[in-house]
Amino acid sequence: MSKLFIIKIGGNVLDNPPALSAFLQDFAAIREPKILIHGGGKIATKIGDSLGIESKYVNGRRITDAATLDVVTMVYGGLVNKHIVATLQKLGTNGIGLTGADGNTIKAVRRPVKDVDYGFVGDITPDGVNVNFLSTLLNAGIVPVFAPLTHSEGAILNTNADTIASVLAVALGKQFDVRLIFCFEKKGVLRNVNDPSTVIRHLPKSKYEELLPAGVFADGILPKLENAYAAIQTGVKEVLIGEASDLLKNTGSETEGTLITI
Amino acid sequence: MSKLFIIKIGGNVLDNPPALSAFLQDFAAIREPKILIHGGGKIATKIGDSLGIESKYVNGRRITDAATLDVVTMVYGGLVNKHIVATLQKLGTNGIGLTGADGNTIKAVRRPVKDVDYGFVGDITPDGVNVNFLSTLLNAGIVPVFAPLTHSEGAILNTNADTIASVLAVALGKQFDVRLIFCFEKKGVLRNVNDPSTVIRHLPKSKYEELLPAGVFADGILPKLENAYAAIQTGVKEVLIGEASDLLKNTGSETEGTLITI
Repeated sequence: MSKLFIIKIGGNVLDNPPALSAFLQDFAAIREPKILIHGGGKIATKIGDSLGIESKYVNGRRITDAATLDVVTMVYGGLVNKHIVATLQKLGTNGIGLTGADGNTIKAVRRPVKDVDYGFVGDITPDGVNVNFLSTLLNAGIVPVFAPLTHSEGAILNTNADTIASVLAVALGKQFDVRLIFCFEKKGVLRNVNDPSTVIRHLPKSKYEELLPAGVFADGILPKLENAYAAIQTGVKEVLIGEASDLLKNTGSETEGTLITI
Repeated sequence: MSKLFIIKIGGNVLDNPPALSAFLQDFAAIREPKILIHGGGKIATKIGDSLGIESKYVNGRRITDAATLDVVTMVYGGLVNKHIVATLQKLGTNGIGLTGADGNTIKAVRRPVKDVDYGFVGDITPDGVNVNFLSTLLNAGIVPVFAPLTHSEGAILNTNADTIASVLAVALGKQFDVRLIFCFEKKGVLRNVNDPSTVIRHLPKSKYEELLPAGVFADGILPKLENAYAAIQTGVKEVLIGEASDLLKNTGSETEGTLITI
């Protein structure tokens, strides 16, 4: 099976133009098949505020009402996505900007209303991924660039970018040796959260289970690690957690970040 | 050669939700390969105004400065485009939203500054169209939906939707029997501009040249007709000018609008 890098970047890169520009240069330099998933960043909130659209939260989670959905569709699906794609074209990488609606690449289910109505939010599973079309693009040397948006029943739905990255990795894991890379604000998973030199370079599940009871992992990293092991147990070969600026090292065999394997 | 419909809709459809919904239903019902190009509509101006971005004009033509480019990229490339694609998916048509940057489908040249600097505006020719990739999509049953945006040197560029439709038609005319359909606010080209019952159903070039000196054509239609004959002389089989609500008739052999041929 050929190698495939599925790489997710978030607000810390998107909100920082020089960091984004450096990241895209590194991303364009990757020779293997690759997919980029970008989150939102602060610009959607800023534009929403300018348009007089109030952000609503329930239990600390943002509600995507119709007005907010329009803002994220514009900003994530239009402004951010097309800026990235045009930049990649200049760098010689043939990107194609996608939401899950485009080419029916990721079909979602609108989150059912229980205690809270999250609004236009999509939940997804690997079954909803159009593996056939994405493989065709990848095999033609085209690089999908996903905005964090999916679709269901004629509506665009707001969907967590980490989840999109994981679900794509699982779905494509049947046809590719996938390394799923989450770029975040630290070098990797740290033994001591205050000391960047304590990156755990390799964290197979056995080691994780050994370190977990000792309280080594900071609270913020635990959900990421749980997601990583869930991905690995369902067909993703490797998950890497690291800093965006280390991308090229983290796509190689000697990684700077934390490589998670079975 | 198989048939291909390239259909352009403008503000009169986009600004009217029931008309857009009816149009998309008809569009989805077309069985042959098809491409949709949408213009902008008033919503970009409205959102630009809300964001405090002033529209600038020189000699009646809008200037696309950096702030305006962000607005049209968001609104045309995000909001309008993704709404159309998600709706088509629900209607069983596998649309894929594209700007010219996506998959390098339409490469432009930024308009050179002579007397006026139009800003981020792209001029295009059939050479800039990625015929290979678009044919692959069409042959796979996927329906390109173009926003009026192209790219050059890492920048998104604002580009006239009529021009995109014509240039795509010429470029794809080598591989498909193209009928290029411009949806506008009248039934077709009228002998008497005040009488909708006077549609000229068939307007081959010889008939046009016969009627032109008699002053039959209203000023507004002349540039459209000139573009149509230019397209036909460079490989497009047929151009049709008609009303969006007549789409299904206008994709058949007994058209309601004006069919323009060699």
